[in-house]
Amino acid sequence: MRSISLAVLVEKLGGELIGSPDVLIAGLAPLDSATSADISFLSNPKYQQQLTQSHAGCVIVGPSVAALASTRGPCIVTPNPYLYFARLTQLWRKRTSRDASGNPVIHPSAVVDPEAHIAATARIGPLCVIEAGAKVGEGTILKSRVTLGEDCHIGDRCIVHSGVVIGADGFGFAPDNGRWEKIEQLGAVRIGNDVEIGANTCIDRGALSDTIIEDGVKLDNLIQIGHNVRIGAHTAMAGCVGVAGSATIGAHCTVGGGAIILGHLSLASGVHISAATVVSKSIHKPGNYTGIFPLDENANWERNAASLKQLHSLRDRIKTLEKENKP
Amino acid sequence: MRSISLAVLVEKLGGELIGSPDVLIAGLAPLDSATSADISFLSNPKYQQQLTQSHAGCVIVGPSVAALASTRGPCIVTPNPYLYFARLTQLWRKRTSRDASGNPVIHPSAVVDPEAHIAATARIGPLCVIEAGAKVGEGTILKSRVTLGEDCHIGDRCIVHSGVVIGADGFGFAPDNGRWEKIEQLGAVRIGNDVEIGANTCIDRGALSDTIIEDGVKLDNLIQIGHNVRIGAHTAMAGCVGVAGSATIGAHCTVGGGAIILGHLSLASGVHISAATVVSKSIHKPGNYTGIFPLDENANWERNAASLKQLHSLRDRIKTLEKENKP
Amino acid sequence: MRSISLAVLVEKLGGELIGSPDVLIAGLAPLDSATSADISFLSNPKYQQQLTQSHAGCVIVGPSVAALASTRGPCIVTPNPYLYFARLTQLWRKRTSRDASGNPVIHPSAVVDPEAHIAATARIGPLCVIEAGAKVGEGTILKSRVTLGEDCHIGDRCIVHSGVVIGADGFGFAPDNGRWEKIEQLGAVRIGNDVEIGANTCIDRGALSDTIIEDGVKLDNLIQIGHNVRIGAHTAMAGCVGVAGSATIGAHCTVGGGAIILGHLSLASGVHISAATVVSKSIHKPGNYTGIFPLDENANWERNAASLKQLHSLRDRIKTLEKENKP
Repeated sequence: MRSISLAVLVEKLGGELIGSPDVLIAGLAPLDSATSADISFLSNPKYQQQLTQSHAGCVIVGPSVAALASTRGPCIVTPNPYLYFARLTQLWRKRTSRDASGNPVIHPSAVVDPEAHIAATARIGPLCVIEAGAKVGEGTILKSRVTLGEDCHIGDRCIVHSGVVIGADGFGFAPDNGRWEKIEQLGAVRIGNDVEIGANTCIDRGALSDTIIEDGVKLDNLIQIGHNVRIGAHTAMAGCVGVAGSATIGAHCTVGGGAIILGHLSLASGVHISAATVVSKSIHKPGNYTGIFPLDENANWERNAASLKQLHSLRDRIKTLEKENKP
Repeated sequence: MRSISLAVLVEKLGGELIGSPDVLIAGLAPLDSATSADISFLSNPKYQQQLTQSHAGCVIVGPSVAALASTRGPCIVTPNPYLYFARLTQLWRKRTSRDASGNPVIHPSAVVDPEAHIAATARIGPLCVIEAGAKVGEGTILKSRVTLGEDCHIGDRCIVHSGVVIGADGFGFAPDNGRWEKIEQLGAVRIGNDVEIGANTCIDRGALSDTIIEDGVKLDNLIQIGHNVRIGAHTAMAGCVGVAGSATIGAHCTVGGGAIILGHLSLASGVHISAATVVSKSIHKPGNYTGIFPLDENANWERNAASLKQLHSLRDRIKTLEKENKP
Repeated sequence: MRSISLAVLVEKLGGELIGSPDVLIAGLAPLDSATSADISFLSNPKYQQQLTQSHAGCVIVGPSVAALASTRGPCIVTPNPYLYFARLTQLWRKRTSRDASGNPVIHPSAVVDPEAHIAATARIGPLCVIEAGAKVGEGTILKSRVTLGEDCHIGDRCIVHSGVVIGADGFGFAPDNGRWEKIEQLGAVRIGNDVEIGANTCIDRGALSDTIIEDGVKLDNLIQIGHNVRIGAHTAMAGCVGVAGSATIGAHCTVGGGAIILGHLSLASGVHISAATVVSKSIHKPGNYTGIFPLDENANWERNAASLKQLHSLRDRIKTLEKENKP
């Protein structure tokens, strides 16, 4: 892999270089494992000790630690080191990617309905299925084995990872004397621009109207999005999250891995749900919300769990004691 | 999309029409967003206010609200409006579907073993894999990218959504001095009639005998069914549920999204498990069961979670206080 | 299916046969459903009653129950009956498998990049995708519809079930004024020998360095492994587990179904996590750990859950009572 000089790097990405522009960088690495051929970054000032001990050839830092960093060796100063690092990974990806110019834009093994609309600059990977009426926007990439169902639309510059299913039927049935009568799902899925969807994640089509994923949403792997859910712009969800039907989630929310959001409720913008938390009612106020049973050694857990089933009566007993204690 | 008159609609689906049979319907919509070209429904009388304010061209209602509904405009009266609505979605789907008569019954991109048995009216979608000895019943639809493993059988009129894996090996290993020795999974999967299986759901083959899914079972997306599980007829499970090996679940149960059912236990028929609940022991009595840590603002949760780890000792302290308070 | 005599069976698998070597075995079955043509096993002495009542043609037992077992009929005595049974299932699988000698080693429907390295004895199933730079070791089997991403390596004698995605991008973004800037994932995935990976499980590529799965690890279905996770040798995880980025898990651990392990923490070797438990901090001591809200009838749960949100204040009230009660 070819090296790149700090001079070229700063020319492409900006930032103030302190140190020699001729230092060559061959790779990216965390502070603690970087060698003199690597560039690293410090986004959280509390890791300053790692900074001073790092062997990195260059470190990306914020203004507040620039003085300290420069005593160690070359550094690039920028207001947001983590964002700078993100852009650096993108630059690196472009430099080191295999040449894809010979690859077909629609892989010949993909099954694309003649009534689907694929933008000229979109890429459809091997063994994808694009059904009739589906639309894929400019610059959007579907990796291998993605299904995009009938009439489902995905915007520009999206990345859809392998195994994703967009537009399977929502889970809708009417009870009929002990059996279930299917409610055909007549809506579709509409996905905005700059959305990324992780491997094997599923987004169901709506029952009557559409399921909506707004611009800039980021979904990790193995997430389930039920029918008629709406996810606001720039909301991010970690792996294994489940969102039940008709939930409405605001913009700029984050949802931790394994969280479950029940159906027909709404989350305000700026709500942050901890991992593995169950959201069983609407949340109208931005903030951090949690509901996790704390981990414990098994024996302790057993005793506390047993007591938990009597918590209500414990409360009553405290009340009684308080009454008795009143003079 | 062609419109349909209320006269034709009632002729096909039954119900008592109050109002003009000539009103034309072009779509289905919820009460609150329906226009005069839409038909809507009211299944829960507590939403009567939505009914009176709706602009729907016709509303499907139960007998108890027929009088009120008819003051608003045309309505169809039927004992079970939600079931009527389900049948209406099916009628609508048939009317609006793209003509599939030219589509092959087994898509040419599917990989079907010569020793598999596909019923004449079954449909096997693009990029499915049907292994030797597998059987697919009459009228059953496998959407795209479904794997049906060796010797696994699926009955009539089933719908299997994209990405489903039926008949992967159950998770069985014998410990052998710190490493795991594989237990080959010699059973298969048997699925009854009228079963629907959601996208990317997995149903493992049995270890010695078969994993069984009875008639009318409905499974949502991203569900894991372990080896030798038995799911009784007409039981429904929402997304992200996990059922561990050898669990036996009765008929007419419902399991909420993200619930986990441990292995080697049994649930009576008519048991309803709330979302995200962990079933750690058998349940012999029909009813509703729950075990969810309640959501709270993060700061409150932290305090209560810390106290929870001492709940057992709190109980002891209450006991001590009660003894002291005894005269 | 051809029968096999106990003489041949013991010749192949070892163990001490008590009873006639001419008894013919046609199948494997649990003690309670075995017929005289089946062989069964007893691994847990507490099921001795099932042993004495079983109709099995032969039972595999440990030395401590050999005397009892031999009063019932033929038995094979071995130090570890469950391990013996595992090897028997492997023998059975070989005897009863369809002849695969005519099957291609790389299925013609698979999409394999010319720059991928597939060992001579590996098998690549239908509709798999193997990207450039990927490596598959000797004897490793990829069932149908597996994606092995760019530069990802998998060792020898592994089994990868259908729908697995190895090497999708890890979930990494830098916040930038309310939107998310992608951090390109420049690492890959390295998987050791003798690893088994269940259907639709996802293992993400690392951000800078690689995600590592060591030898002998067993992962069930629908598991999410985040970027830069390291899983120690011979650790086993049941279905629906989620492991967030940069978690380091020791060797010989077990993780129950649906458990969530948060990111950037470490578990010592020999840690056992119960199903559906959330691991929110590092665990340095081997042992069993649990955190599950106990299931209850819905009405009881509601009362206790409500009290739980006041647990901290209950603790304060107990403290007050204790002070008042002091003489």
